[in-house]
This record gives sequence, structure tokens and C-alpha cells, in this order.
Amino acid sequence: MISVEKALQIVLNSTQDFGIEEIPFIKSVGRILKEEILADRDFPPFDRVSMDGIVIEYTSFKNGQRSFKIEGIQAAGSKQITLLDAQNCIEVMTGAVLPKKANTVIRYEDVTIKNGIATININSINDGQNIHTKGKDEKSGALLISKNTKISAAEIGVLATVGKAFVKVAKQPKVMIVSTGDELVGVDEIPLEHQIRRSNVFTLVSLLERLNIPSETAHIADDKPILKSKIERYLQEYDVLLFSGAVSKGKYDFLPEIFEELEVEKLFHKVTQRPGKPFWFGRAASLRLSEQHVYQNENKQTIVFGFPGNPISTFVNCLAYFYPWYYKSIGLETEEETAILGEDVNFRPNLTYFLQVKLENKKGCIVALPISGNGSGDLASLVKTAAFIQLPEDKLAFKKGEVFKIIRYR
Amino acid sequence: MISVEKALQIVLNSTQDFGIEEIPFIKSVGRILKEEILADRDFPPFDRVSMDGIVIEYTSFKNGQRSFKIEGIQAAGSKQITLLDAQNCIEVMTGAVLPKKANTVIRYEDVTIKNGIATININSINDGQNIHTKGKDEKSGALLISKNTKISAAEIGVLATVGKAFVKVAKQPKVMIVSTGDELVGVDEIPLEHQIRRSNVFTLVSLLERLNIPSETAHIADDKPILKSKIERYLQEYDVLLFSGAVSKGKYDFLPEIFEELEVEKLFHKVTQRPGKPFWFGRAASLRLSEQHVYQNENKQTIVFGFPGNPISTFVNCLAYFYPWYYKSIGLETEEETAILGEDVNFRPNLTYFLQVKLENKKGCIVALPISGNGSGDLASLVKTAAFIQLPEDKLAFKKGEVFKIIRYR
Repeated sequence: MISVEKALQIVLNSTQDFGIEEIPFIKSVGRILKEEILADRDFPPFDRVSMDGIVIEYTSFKNGQRSFKIEGIQAAGSKQITLLDAQNCIEVMTGAVLPKKANTVIRYEDVTIKNGIATININSINDGQNIHTKGKDEKSGALLISKNTKISAAEIGVLATVGKAFVKVAKQPKVMIVSTGDELVGVDEIPLEHQIRRSNVFTLVSLLERLNIPSETAHIADDKPILKSKIERYLQEYDVLLFSGAVSKGKYDFLPEIFEELEVEKLFHKVTQRPGKPFWFGRAASLRLSEQHVYQNENKQTIVFGFPGNPISTFVNCLAYFYPWYYKSIGLETEEETAILGEDVNFRPNLTYFLQVKLENKKGCIVALPISGNGSGDLASLVKTAAFIQLPEDKLAFKKGEVFKIIRYR
Repeated sequence: MISVEKALQIVLNSTQDFGIEEIPFIKSVGRILKEEILADRDFPPFDRVSMDGIVIEYTSFKNGQRSFKIEGIQAAGSKQITLLDAQNCIEVMTGAVLPKKANTVIRYEDVTIKNGIATININSINDGQNIHTKGKDEKSGALLISKNTKISAAEIGVLATVGKAFVKVAKQPKVMIVSTGDELVGVDEIPLEHQIRRSNVFTLVSLLERLNIPSETAHIADDKPILKSKIERYLQEYDVLLFSGAVSKGKYDFLPEIFEELEVEKLFHKVTQRPGKPFWFGRAASLRLSEQHVYQNENKQTIVFGFPGNPISTFVNCLAYFYPWYYKSIGLETEEETAILGEDVNFRPNLTYFLQVKLENKKGCIVALPISGNGSGDLASLVKTAAFIQLPEDKLAFKKGEVFKIIRYR
């Protein structure tokens, strides 16, 4: 048995590089950028009119002139025109290029237009006002989005603006999710008295979907030869195998011995935590795999997460170990989130306690309110909560107001 | 001009019911549940063994017996067997039904098995231990998930467990996103000196994708007859139209007059906020539409959001108005999120200020650190920030440590 901290360290030392792929930018939300995005031109690319109105040469106004003959219109998207006579003006639209030889925009609200003459109704304007000058936001060549940024709607706008129709992102791992357990039947089946329906594989599929990782699923009966031959094949075909169940002490918990027989290196088995203690973690030796299968990356390994089969155990371990492993693998830096414990908690066992909590935002602070479920089998209790608060194993009493790490799942 | 609060109230008074659809449960993450999910049987559905080990009749142990002949094995997924002799034991696996006439489970760790005899190595056990009793978590018929819950991985597990292979969810609105502006060219085009690439439609598509709303997009030239005929058709075919641009005072800002000519009722135009002030909001009269088009819902209207064309204006208004409108339309209750201002801010204009901020989690509290961009055109500044903090219009000075509403976009 090792501690949660040590287990996480081992998991994070086993990260993988899945490579890079180029995809249409509009499909890239949620993916991790694997190139630097630079400004292809100045931002804005020209002296840009930022108000609808008229443009003049400021000196005329300064010299007392208030009425200006309208020479023409500079629309957004039209080629730059020139103010021919410094005593005249041009109507300009937001987004238009500033006409040549003009330098100050007065908005329509401050102007009266009659018979082709615009009269300014205010006595104070600033030289060069209402112009968003070329390159003010960013210079051509400037770094707009760093490599390893998680792409959101904000980045999509920038990608469009600089013309990145296709964008390089981290490839996703190829994941197989396997449930075991002869007590499990399908979602659309009616279970017998002693059976229950499969749920963990679907929960895991959904937890991976949050990371935009597609996955495949399989259910295998508690039959050692069948399990072994299927796992042998999965080890050759997938980057990651996630198991739910069959890693504890039961007579049909075949996974640890199958992993050993298939030379999957055990990095740890059992962590001092509740729920989720019998977690098995390992990796398949790269040499064996590279003989049988052609990989882009010679050092590619298959990482094996053997989660305990209780619903809450599978759920919390996916969040506490698979998520950080994935984030580090693709190069995303994440920040630890903390919350303030909303009531006293006592927990006697010498284990890290992943306690389910509701979260409330109070005056800018996150308050974690424990909801006590009935242990690791109480799947329905997850519906009432939003996160786990991680209470360390070196304490028995946790006081209201103390701050601890949380892992959100909504 | 109306206030942000008044504008939001009007938007929230114009919500729509898009109806209900039934979809495969595994596709339902992020959607809003439109039925109650009840326990189809007790949770757990039988007295469930919760440790791998042996099961005995407690009285034998109490009477001093420590060694028990193993009668058989009760595996998970096997029909319930019976302990025939109260002096014997049965090996039991986690997830198995408790055998009849047995009542106390001792885990393998506390037992030695030799020649078919299990000997208990500890002197204290509890009557009925390590059994998760039938119905302890939930009784058959109990409400497990309320209507109007946003479905996450937690709910997926429960849906699978109760056999809801298909689930009723709120239908998504049918949305058309339209950009205007002759200065805009496609993402894969090379803009001329006075042109820029389209970006707002893609940003909006991505912001809607966060809500699992698919959308269509169109770009229409600044040509009034073309704009009008296309919008007339869209009003008949979509639940929501989102526009970016052409709602201000420019000569080619045709939208307000087209809306008027097409009898789209203007509910407001211009809000006392920065950025995003020239926001136009309205709805198409239901009568006119129902004559031309068959709707499931007779009262169905088309809601029109006319966002100003500057990138930050479109972005913030989608978050500040479309999002709450959508949440209320589908019946999702959301809670306001607040953060602590990380430094002093002064803002003179009598407008609500949506200020871009980075967010940091410090000791369980959310600190908002302002990043000053170069105004509503500075799209690239969104990459550096995570949220808008909403500073009310009735103040000029906002002090470090004060708490305000935030709107996250990552």
C-alpha cells in the first residue's frame, strides 16, 4: 500500500506522448494546441475607424471650423480613399480604414447633417479620437496563443482572424474501457434478483468525453482464459486500458495475475485512500509491444488503470489519477483548486478520504458541504454532489473553515 | 438605453419552450433531463456482500467457534445459495448476494484457509458486518434524479443502473448565426489591406457548442434587399437568430430597419454597458409565423439577438444574455458566481463595465485579476483572461477585496 501522493507521483511519471494531429480549427474546442499562433499582420491591420460618424483633419477644427462639406463615404470593407480637401469631411463607418489625410473621427451623435454639410455640435474633441491605430493591440509576428493552451471559444476567434483554418493539436489517446463481473447485465436488460446493470463503463465513457477523448468499451465475463486473450490483444491496440473491477482479493479477481502473466509491469497496487483503495496501476513493457505492432513512437507503452469496481471508487480514481495523467501527457498545466470545508468532519482510518461535497459560492469563496453517502457502492449519492474534497490521511479531525484540495466533476 | 438589469429581465421574460426529445442515455451528457428518474428496485437490490471473504452465522462465532468448514462459494452474479449448516461457512465475493441463513462477512485478510477449513484470526467481529443491506441507499420508487437536472457522468451511471437506455431531455433550439459586414472575408482567404477575416460567427458557434447547441452560420453582404429576404426566411425556420454587427448607427447598419419592416418586435436597443452597448433584442410576432409554418407549439416565436459586431461585444453579450435566456428556456436553474476583485479599478462612464479578468484560486476563494485590453476590438486579449467581472454602473471606484458577479468563459 502506498500513499495517494506517492501513487499520483508514479502515475505522473508514466505519462505518454500521443503525437500531434492537424484538424479543422472549428473542431478544436477543448483540444490542446500544439503550435504557437502568431499574428499574421498587425492587430488591427490598418488605422481602423471605431465609431460611425465623420472624419476630418483635426487642424481645421482647431482653427475654429465647425461645418464640413461631405466629400464621400468610407465604408467598412472598401478600399482606402483620401480626404481631398482638408476643409471637408468624409462619412466613415465602424471597421472602415481611416481615409488618407484625415485623422479625427466625430461620432454621428455629435454631428448634424443637412444638405451635404456636417456640422459638429460639440466644442471639444481630441486630435486622433475614435481611431483604433494600426498594431495597437498586437504587432505582426506577436505571439497570440501559446503552445499547450486548451482551446476555447476565445481562441477560436483568434484562430479565425489569423487564418488558421487547420490547427495542430495533441492527438488523443486510444482508450479501451473494460468492465468485468458476472453479476452485470446490459442497460436494456432486466436483471435477475442477484444481478445488477452495468454502469461503470458508461460513467467512464462520460468522464472521458469531458476531456474530448473518445473511447471503446467491452464487458468480459469472469473467465480467466477469455479475459487474458482479450487483454493481450487490447495491450497491442490501445494506449490506455481502463478496468473497472476484478482487482481486489476475490476468487474471480483475475486481473492482477493476468497482468503479471502478460508482463504488464505493476507500478503499484492498493493506495491508502477511501474509497478506491484496491487501485492497480501498471504499464506494458514497450519492447514486447513494439515487436508485434508498428507504432509512430518506438517507446510507446500501454498504460493500465485497474480501478476497483465499486461505482464511487471507479469514479474518484478516474478523476484523481487518470485526469492528471492525461493532462500531463498532453502538456496541459492545470492548477489545483481548493475549497473551504463547510462543516467539521471526523475520519478515523489512516487513509486519505475523498469525501463527496456540494459546492456553494459565498462572497467569492467556494464552500464545500459534505453529503454523506452509504459508502463506495452508493452511486446515487453522486447525483447530489459536485466534487470530492481530499482530506489528508495524517489527520483525524477536519475543521469547518479549513482549506483543502477539491476535485470537481460538474 | 436601458440598464443591464432591465435588459436581462426583458430577455428572461422572452424565454421559449423548445419541447422534449428522447435520446440514447449515453448521448445525454450536458443535456437537461425532462423526466424524473426513479429507483426501479431497491439500491442495493439484495443484501449485498461488500468484502471478499467468508460468510458465517454470527451466533457460532459468538459461541466461541473460530474454524469453519467451507461449504461452497457464492460468486457475484450467481443465484443465492444457502448456508446448510450453521457451523460451516461459505466463501463470498464482493457484489454477491448474501447466502441464506448466513449473516456476517469476515474479509480474507482476517482469515486463514487450509484444507477446506477457514479459521478466523481476530477476536472481535460485528454481527452483520460487511453487508450492504437491501435498500440501504435507496428504496424502490425513490426519486434518484430530479427533472431539469443537467446530466453529467454521475447521472449517466444512475441512468444505466435503472435501465434508462433512452431518456427524455429538453430539445435544443434551432439556431442561425449571421454575420454581416463587407470588410469580412473567409478564414481560408487572404484579406486585402482594408479587409479582415470573419471570426465572430465561429466564436458564437463555439460558445453555443459549450451548451451542446448545434448551430448553422451564414455571412450576408451589407445589401439591404438581400439581407431582408434571407432574414425573412430565417425567421420562419429558426427558433433563435444571433447577429453580429449592423446594429449601430452606421449607414450600412440595416438590421434595425429590416427588423422593423419584417415586424420583429423590438424589445430594446442599446444597453448602458461597455463593451456591447448597441445590443438589439426582439422577437418575431407568433401570429405571422404560425400562418406560414407548422410548429409543434402554436406560440412559438423567433427570438432575435442583434449583437454589436466588435469581437468582445459579441462575446460578452452572448454570455451575459443568450446563456441565461437559454438556461431559463430549458428549465435549468443556475447560481450566480462571484469573485473577489484583486486590485482597485476606476471606471468613470455611467455604464456597467464588463471587465476581463484572470481567475486565481487562493485558499478556497476566487480572486479576479483585471487584464486591460485595448477595448471592444481587442479579440486577442480574450486569450489572456477567463471571465468577465461585472462592475455595476452606479459606482466609479471598485476596491480590491470587494465582491462582484463574474461570468466565466473557460
